[in-house]
Amino acid sequence: MKALFYPYLQNLQNLITKKLEHQDHLGRFEEEIWERPEGGGGRTRILENGAIFEKAGVNISAVHGTLPPSMQTYFKVEKSTFYACGLSLVIHPKNPMIPTVHANFRYFELYNKRGTLKDQWFGGGLDLTPYYLIEEDIIHFHQCCKNSCDEFDPSFYSTFKEQCDNYFWNAHRNEARGVGGLFFDYLKQTKEISLQDRYDFVTAVGNNFLNAYIPIVQKRKDYRYTPKQRMWQEIRRGRYVEFNLIHDKGTLFGLKTNGRIESILMSLPPHVQWRYDNHPEKNSEEADLVAVLEKPRDWL
Amino acid sequence: MKALFYPYLQNLQNLITKKLEHQDHLGRFEEEIWERPEGGGGRTRILENGAIFEKAGVNISAVHGTLPPSMQTYFKVEKSTFYACGLSLVIHPKNPMIPTVHANFRYFELYNKRGTLKDQWFGGGLDLTPYYLIEEDIIHFHQCCKNSCDEFDPSFYSTFKEQCDNYFWNAHRNEARGVGGLFFDYLKQTKEISLQDRYDFVTAVGNNFLNAYIPIVQKRKDYRYTPKQRMWQEIRRGRYVEFNLIHDKGTLFGLKTNGRIESILMSLPPHVQWRYDNHPEKNSEEADLVAVLEKPRDWL
Repeated sequence: MKALFYPYLQNLQNLITKKLEHQDHLGRFEEEIWERPEGGGGRTRILENGAIFEKAGVNISAVHGTLPPSMQTYFKVEKSTFYACGLSLVIHPKNPMIPTVHANFRYFELYNKRGTLKDQWFGGGLDLTPYYLIEEDIIHFHQCCKNSCDEFDPSFYSTFKEQCDNYFWNAHRNEARGVGGLFFDYLKQTKEISLQDRYDFVTAVGNNFLNAYIPIVQKRKDYRYTPKQRMWQEIRRGRYVEFNLIHDKGTLFGLKTNGRIESILMSLPPHVQWRYDNHPEKNSEEADLVAVLEKPRDWL
Repeated sequence: MKALFYPYLQNLQNLITKKLEHQDHLGRFEEEIWERPEGGGGRTRILENGAIFEKAGVNISAVHGTLPPSMQTYFKVEKSTFYACGLSLVIHPKNPMIPTVHANFRYFELYNKRGTLKDQWFGGGLDLTPYYLIEEDIIHFHQCCKNSCDEFDPSFYSTFKEQCDNYFWNAHRNEARGVGGLFFDYLKQTKEISLQDRYDFVTAVGNNFLNAYIPIVQKRKDYRYTPKQRMWQEIRRGRYVEFNLIHDKGTLFGLKTNGRIESILMSLPPHVQWRYDNHPEKNSEEADLVAVLEKPRDWL
């Protein structure tokens, strides 16, 4: 599975970065190949100060080695070695009318002390963080998520949509990070579902990412916006930072396994503001967004 | 002690906010009195968009109630009730030649199930986070810290200076948050030192805060700076956010005890940037700062 999935991710990274560059005209991805001292490494690609994308990171990595004690506790296992590979992307557009998007596709293997494979699973998903509620865009994104799911199991979309709302919950703010999408983890083989079936599902979701996001970019990239709307975007980006640094398990895993800091923290937005006790005006478009974040909606 | 220390903090908050307003001419503190549903409350004072201070928060609070399970584990105690009061301040000046400063003075009481006092201690300190190394300012700040300590115990300064360097260590970046100052915790009564002695020490440090910081503000407030220097300040502020959200125990305590979010997160800087893999040029002033942060120095 390692030999199958990592090449898939390499190819997906190529596809996505090419498509984003094509959209942006101006911005170009810079690539960095890095190695992890304890085993493995990755290929980081970052685009900054594009015409459309203010900051975009599309990274892949495959790391392996001894599982740190804290992660042993987390996975409830004894001394183990592990293999993990994944693609992570975060795109922060300049225009506040285009949502921020995040996606992740990952595969994990755990081995016992003698190196015997003990467990293996897929995880991942994609989710949208708008600054203004343009409902048709959110519905389009969720429809794409549902389409990827429905060919596999009619229950997948509603299950993984709910898990996404639960996972990206900014508990200390009592609101969601964004309007969700899909989140799945520990997708293991069962009696009915083979590991190949899991691979087929995760790659189907991966293959559908560009369909879910790029049409939104194309529709909104020439929308005008005011300095006040840009300020709102920068304030909301602050909530994105709070989620990623306080709650996100992926960030935590990266920091605990001595991952490459700059690749992990590429998710942080380029320009951010924190204002004291900022609240949108009643009945404003900003208030509409907050209402939806406080009470996640069924979009389809 | 509660009846002695909280009025002291109320008075110190008045002194500090008055002095800061006097320095700033333009900016004025807005006050918010808040109550904690589980017991207690506080008085938050925030100044935004001043002439000198871009964002400054000087908050006091006194909270009490049942200790949350996570904090029981942290303090290694059984089911307890607690009382905690403190003053916390963070000042983010606009001009990158003026350092950011943080100070905290706090007092804690723990009671067993029947309400009997089981433990009580003081904690706190002050520390400086410059964006450019103006050595005489850092030496002045540390000299004030030492002066506050020396009248009590000749070992205090070196002990609490080292604890400060250790505490404000941004482990995932392998660098200090700033150039330190003092950090002390669990200052309890001993055979030789009474709780009143502890009070005398902590209040002496508190009384010396304005002497440590205001002369630096006065000296540097009219220094010119370039957009590039301002950008450097905003990038370094990102490291401040990372420390506060990933490592800071005070922030954690506030979030876990259902503290007032806006008062806890007032510490976050107003305008912040994250750029991918940003490093200062060799032999630049920015590189000088990073060198000191990577290897904390003895300033006196």
